[in-house]
Parts: sequence; structure tokens; C-alpha cells
Amino acid sequence: MTSISVNRDDEDLRITIIGAGTIGLSLAALHLTYLKTPSNLTIVDVRPDLESHILRALPAYLPQRLHIRVPQVKMASSVPAAVKDSAIVQECGPENLAFKSALWSEVESHAPPDALFWTSTSGIPASHQNVQMRDPSRLIVVHPFNPPHILPLLEVVPSPQTSQSVIDLTVGFWRRRGRQPVLLQKEITGFVAGRLAWVLLREAIHLVDQGIVTVEQLDRIIENSMGPRWAYAGPFKSFHAGGGPGGLEALLKNVSPTVQACWDDAGKVNMGDSWEDKVFRQVRESYGALDLEERDLANRKVLQTVQEVKRETKVQD
Amino acid sequence: MTSISVNRDDEDLRITIIGAGTIGLSLAALHLTYLKTPSNLTIVDVRPDLESHILRALPAYLPQRLHIRVPQVKMASSVPAAVKDSAIVQECGPENLAFKSALWSEVESHAPPDALFWTSTSGIPASHQNVQMRDPSRLIVVHPFNPPHILPLLEVVPSPQTSQSVIDLTVGFWRRRGRQPVLLQKEITGFVAGRLAWVLLREAIHLVDQGIVTVEQLDRIIENSMGPRWAYAGPFKSFHAGGGPGGLEALLKNVSPTVQACWDDAGKVNMGDSWEDKVFRQVRESYGALDLEERDLANRKVLQTVQEVKRETKVQD
Repeated sequence: MTSISVNRDDEDLRITIIGAGTIGLSLAALHLTYLKTPSNLTIVDVRPDLESHILRALPAYLPQRLHIRVPQVKMASSVPAAVKDSAIVQECGPENLAFKSALWSEVESHAPPDALFWTSTSGIPASHQNVQMRDPSRLIVVHPFNPPHILPLLEVVPSPQTSQSVIDLTVGFWRRRGRQPVLLQKEITGFVAGRLAWVLLREAIHLVDQGIVTVEQLDRIIENSMGPRWAYAGPFKSFHAGGGPGGLEALLKNVSPTVQACWDDAGKVNMGDSWEDKVFRQVRESYGALDLEERDLANRKVLQTVQEVKRETKVQD
Repeated sequence: MTSISVNRDDEDLRITIIGAGTIGLSLAALHLTYLKTPSNLTIVDVRPDLESHILRALPAYLPQRLHIRVPQVKMASSVPAAVKDSAIVQECGPENLAFKSALWSEVESHAPPDALFWTSTSGIPASHQNVQMRDPSRLIVVHPFNPPHILPLLEVVPSPQTSQSVIDLTVGFWRRRGRQPVLLQKEITGFVAGRLAWVLLREAIHLVDQGIVTVEQLDRIIENSMGPRWAYAGPFKSFHAGGGPGGLEALLKNVSPTVQACWDDAGKVNMGDSWEDKVFRQVRESYGALDLEERDLANRKVLQTVQEVKRETKVQD
């Protein structure tokens, strides 16, 4: 196992992002807001229009005052040179095991021995991606929630081989950035945020497919109930608060038959089933092309609002 | 089928709340904020300390300036007198079919022929509750999300017998109150918000039970990802926005194997299983008694924030 250390002065770390898609650019923007030296950030992608793509797309993820940093970002089309001085290599490439495991073997051969290796995968655990590495203890999942330059969650998921120092340095880095790294105890399919979101979406699809509500009605239901509720307190804390002195236990015991009936009756739609046409059409017709600027502003302000309330009432956690 | 009409001047309607529990008081508070004449609100409950209970508990649901209205609220211990002049009877009693069906038969015998009958049940459909009524077309589910004096959602769920005029008057009333009534097309176990929340909670329980995350970590995951996200846009709209030009369809096709794997691997815990001790203990130890004032303030401000962003960017819906 390699001994790994990362410069405590995070602002000056050399960071390489692999993949210039939505997540890659959003993470690049996040790093750019902290780096004193924008040229310490490198973005690698094989697309032939990489430079014009980044100059066009990256500013949208940044506040106006930081647009000036965009042209200073380094760009590269091949991995070896791009990672050779990196303290952090953060992969945001395609969800493809063959791609990722070949990539990490290449990265490992060219990056400094104390560089951190992070994969943004939403579903392929580090223990599958690290099989071609000489030192599999170096790889860890750092799964962001889209868009990561706004939403603070990072699921940190070590493989059984990941070293404790890699875990500690990864969590520490993101804490110092003011983000919310959450360390999962074990690898699991889809990690936690994904599993929770997908299981709710499955039921949502079922309810639209059954004609109980439309796509728009279902969204409106969430926006006026669980959404604002869970922006402040997750489901356990919220249901615990709703249960009075007896808390979650009293609440669940009180509605136990309904809860169990909902679980027994939950929809079992699958990818590729006949719901797809109906649901995709409704979504397109209801929403068309969406205003991401409004979304980003709303998400930022909601996060700020919750922090302000917690600060004011001094129950900050 | 009775012909039903409700005075358009909602502020002066006589409203009777049956049940002085958490939901009953929260709805009473909501009505009190609109009524010109607080004595038009009656709260019925068989508890012997009803008056002291209401005088003590109801103010907590109201802004300071409206505390003065609390002593003017009428109280009653039996249904017939309490409903005889009511335009709206809103039931917030125990989740017990025998109780509810006997109640509606009694209410129907004493209330005016054009009164609206609303049940706040979280799980017993109107078609089960209306079996002893002479005119089952009068009953409709109006399911709030706790606490309804803050969270705007009301799931309006007619039975197959409910008349169109009852549906229209119910939806119209809540729209004029600035709330968010959502009309479900068919009765279904647990309605929509409940089914979505319970299915996510089931997976959350599974993940804690399996030792993947703690209760606090799971809540923190939601508070920093889906919570703020869904406060602005529900899951369909959010995933559609996250999918780029191809929208929801492109996004799901892209991660289809992971989504299906999460669905196939979803937890199947049941009420009463061995997870209960572990999860309930963790929740108690993590949260103890919670500060509802902070929660209420946060929920209100998050809702306001989203409305302000939508107004400012003029994409108000």
C-alpha cells in the first residue's frame, strides 16, 4: 500500500478532471472557485472540439466574476501528460467498466505516487474498477449529486481495498471545501442517494402509468410536501418530528397497516417496459426544454435559506 | 345526489374540525388565519380537557398576532350540535374504519344538506368510509401533508361515488386559499405522497439495517441532494433537467443498468421486522426531542424562497 499525502494547502493543488461532460464541467467549476491558480486545473477529454466546448460551456457553471479563469484552464486529449503532476485525478467518464478499469491502470502508471484517484461513477464500485491496478488501495468512489457545483453531497465509497489514508484525505478535502462528504460503510449497488431516488422514481412511474396522477401533478405533490420538508430534515428526522413525543416509532406504529399496504402494493415497473412511451411523452410535453439557470438559483437559495435558519436558531449541526 | 353549493365568501364559512390531534389543530390554525369570525370555527373532540388543550396547544400553530383568535374558537364534545350549521366538516379522527363510517352517517344526519364532508385519512379511501351514508356522493378525501398549516399540499381523492360538484367545490376552496390541491384520478392505497414517502423510507430503513449508513448520514444525504432539488422541482422535472437535450429519456437510458440493478436489489423490509429496534434506537439517540419551531420556520422560508425565485425569473407556474 502506497503512503499517500496531499498538500494541506488545497487551493494550490493540481487537479485533473477526466471527462468534459455535465458532471466533469460542474466539478471543474467547483474546483475553479477555490484554486488560486486556475492553470492548476486540467480537463482531459478526447473530443476534438475540447477547447471551444470548454470556452463555451464552462462559464455557465460559474459566477460572472470567475469567467476570467476559464481560458486559463489547461486542456489535454491524452491521460499520461495530464496526470503526471496531479495531486488529484477525478474521473467523470462514461459509465463503462472496461473504460474505467483500463483508465485507472493508465493513470496509476503516470500520476505521482501520492495522487488521490476519485471516480464519479453512479454505479460501478471501486472494487470492480481497480482490478487492473498495481495498488488498488488508491481508488475510491466520490459520487456527486448533479449538479455538484451547487448540491453539496458527495458519497464517498471505499472498496474493501481502499486505504484508510485515502479515505481520510478524501473526506478531509471535501470538508475543507465546505461540501458534505458522506462516507458509506460498504459498497452497494447504486450507492445511497441513487437507490433512494430510483426507488421513489419507480413508484412515481407506476403511479403515472396507472393513470392515478399526471407527471406534472406528481411533481407538484413532491414540491409542496417532501421537497421543502426534506430540504431541512431528511426522512428519519422529519418523520421523527412528526410523531410527537413518541417520535418515529409512534408515528409508524400508528399508520403501520397503511405503510405495509403501500409496501405490498408498490409498483414493479422495469426499464424498457411499456410505461416508457407514456411517461417520456408526458415529461416532454409538460416541460420541454428547461431553464437551468432558474433551477440553479433556486437550489442555491434553498440551501442558503436552510443554513440561515439553522444559524439563526443556533441549532447548527 | 344532493345538489351542493358553498358560499363563495369563504372567509365567513362555518367550519367544523373533528379531532383535536396534531392534524386537526394544524388545519384549525390554517382556517383561523382566513376566518373573519373566529367563532365560525368549531373543534369537536371527546377528550375531557378539550378547552385547556386547545388554549394551550393551538397558539403554537399560529403567528403571534392571531393568538387573540384562539379563545373565540367554539368547542364541542358531540357531533350533532357541532355540525348543524357547518358549510364544511373536516374529519381528523383516528385511522379506524368503524369510527369513520359511523361518524359520516351521524354527520350526514345533522349537517346542512349542502355541507362539504372531508376526511383527512392517510389511508382509508372514501369508498370504504361512505358505506353507511345515505348519500355517499358527498364524501371526499382531502389528505394534508403534516403540518398542513405550513406545507401547501392537499391530495383530493374522490371515491367513484363522489359527485363532480363536491370535487369542484373542494378544489376551488383550497385554490382560493392559496394552497396546492392535487386531484387524484382514482383511489389508491396510501394515495400518492404517502406511497412515495413510504417507498423511499423502506429503502432508507433497509440501508440503515444493512449497516451501509447511519440514520443521520442518510438524512444528511437527502438534505444535501434530493431535498433542496425537489423543493424546486419534483423528480420527473429534475431528472428531465439533468438529462440535457435528451431529457429524462436520455438520462434513464444512460444509466439504465444501474437503475434496474437498484430496483432489483431494493430492500424488502416489513413492519414489525428485526430492523425496528436498531432504527428506532438510532433515531432516538441521534435526534431526541426535536425543535419544531425551527422546522416550521425552515419549511416556510424554503417555500417562500422557491416562490420568490420563480416570481423573479417570471417562470411562475
